[in-house]
Amino acid sequence: MTTPIRIGIVGYGNLGRGVETAVGLNPDLELVGVFTRRDPGSVATLGEATRVFPMSDLDEPRDDIDVLILCGGSRDDLPRQTPELASRFTVVDSYDNHAHVPEHVAAVDAAASAAGTTAIVSTGWDPGLFSLNRLFGEAILPQGSTYTFWGRGLSQGHSDALRRVPGVAGGVQYTIPSREAVERVRAGESPELSTRERHTRECYVVLEEGADAEAVREEIVSMPDYFAPYDTTVTFIDADELARDHGGMPHGGFVIRSGRTSDGTSQVIEYRLDLDSNPEFTASVLVAYARAAARLAAAGQHGAKTVLDVPPALLSPRSPEELRAALL
Amino acid sequence: MTTPIRIGIVGYGNLGRGVETAVGLNPDLELVGVFTRRDPGSVATLGEATRVFPMSDLDEPRDDIDVLILCGGSRDDLPRQTPELASRFTVVDSYDNHAHVPEHVAAVDAAASAAGTTAIVSTGWDPGLFSLNRLFGEAILPQGSTYTFWGRGLSQGHSDALRRVPGVAGGVQYTIPSREAVERVRAGESPELSTRERHTRECYVVLEEGADAEAVREEIVSMPDYFAPYDTTVTFIDADELARDHGGMPHGGFVIRSGRTSDGTSQVIEYRLDLDSNPEFTASVLVAYARAAARLAAAGQHGAKTVLDVPPALLSPRSPEELRAALL
Repeated sequence: MTTPIRIGIVGYGNLGRGVETAVGLNPDLELVGVFTRRDPGSVATLGEATRVFPMSDLDEPRDDIDVLILCGGSRDDLPRQTPELASRFTVVDSYDNHAHVPEHVAAVDAAASAAGTTAIVSTGWDPGLFSLNRLFGEAILPQGSTYTFWGRGLSQGHSDALRRVPGVAGGVQYTIPSREAVERVRAGESPELSTRERHTRECYVVLEEGADAEAVREEIVSMPDYFAPYDTTVTFIDADELARDHGGMPHGGFVIRSGRTSDGTSQVIEYRLDLDSNPEFTASVLVAYARAAARLAAAGQHGAKTVLDVPPALLSPRSPEELRAALL
Repeated sequence: MTTPIRIGIVGYGNLGRGVETAVGLNPDLELVGVFTRRDPGSVATLGEATRVFPMSDLDEPRDDIDVLILCGGSRDDLPRQTPELASRFTVVDSYDNHAHVPEHVAAVDAAASAAGTTAIVSTGWDPGLFSLNRLFGEAILPQGSTYTFWGRGLSQGHSDALRRVPGVAGGVQYTIPSREAVERVRAGESPELSTRERHTRECYVVLEEGADAEAVREEIVSMPDYFAPYDTTVTFIDADELARDHGGMPHGGFVIRSGRTSDGTSQVIEYRLDLDSNPEFTASVLVAYARAAARLAAAGQHGAKTVLDVPPALLSPRSPEELRAALL
């Protein structure tokens, strides 16, 4: 048995709890504890033995942590936190603001390269595993089209948007990939698809007392950007049903590359995720990349990396010899 | 425009022809020519401009080739050819004898490390892309089961076996994944599946004149290893139908990882290929890995590698900056 890789969790929401659980499924990893901006005494962890420390404990380098897994939000936390912590620790994050990934990588790379640490950023599934599959698809089938569909899944951003509508007491929104569009792509058709043809949106809404259902429905389905460009259905339910049937965070989706290698020869690659829990799955990806980050750091490969740069074998606890014998 | 990567094809059967076509789809690659054991004058290439050379032209190192793509067979050619050519050239192969991959890697690694060349072996889709997906699945979801299904696809080995049955003038065999088994795995059930429950086999057979159909059918379905462990159907057709409907080489399959991240939380990752042409797709994978091999060689990373060792970004002609902006 080799020495375990020692993991710290920074931030303890749904994602941080998922990382805590995922570390427990990997015998080669060891949890040092959770680091939080809250009062550590107020944080109830899933594991009884999990220790909770104030964030300020990370203000100095320390030799009992191999990798920090950063579980803050992409809007307010990670743009500042990842470069800052990468100047003292090897880190992994799931920064997911697609349009700003290049500047995030640049900022983290500057900090990590200067400090001699390793940072793997924007892991998770999109960006992350879906990015990898878009890469493999276009590299192997250069003549073709790539399609990404999301869902069926709970969208946090759209759920927040519908809850801001006057008269709405609560609710959730699911993104649904169009079955017809998916089937056309799978069949190798390479169709041009509008936004409306790719996904539909299903809203489950609890009304405030006395609210006008039709007015609420109209306000939701006509909301620019969020709902107007889609076929949106609104179903009114009561608070009990919301709590009972819509408390999970399922998600998933597809990346499909449809290409041709010669006249009339269609080749289709499909990657699909069907997730009961989006945060637990994202956490599982972060944890596998934390293992890779520890190994890259130990090999002196410093600076910022993404999933596109990491040799896949580094994700696995098994030796290269075992992997070759078992998986090839 | 950077200098093109110069590719040589060794062996010119279905796979070699696929590589010739695939190189033409990649503007950053340039085909030097085909190297064959046959009389070069007797080889009709797909491309009019493709040059054909005798294999002996590779007996000495030469500076006009960056990567050789080895398109010989795994039984008789590659075990000898890959180490031999790796001692003079950077090479890629699709060695697919799963049980012997470790010794193939070892033999090629000894040659390549000594010569300062790079060899990526056992690329293709299984081993290859399916191996990668088995790795990602078990690394991300350590608590779970991995299932590989093949087909619907033409199996060369089983087609050869049925053609050896007395009374058979011609025929093909398709491997079919059991729809019921695939659906159970997709649903996250993690079932124990026998060989018979995973795949069925469909044979299309042309009888020799005067042959006894029932005797032929019985001989096929009871053949040990090849057909006896499966539910096998035999359909008798005439030679015209065989030529008209069964001349393609479709294949594909699924790798499904079904895991749990916490009690009752099921997570499913599915990777699926649906290929009109198995050799053209395998060739496309070889060509993408040839690009990676050229880059690894240029970076001084010598010795034998497999798909598990190669950073995915190296497969793409695009720069790391472009990839991050476009795919993450």
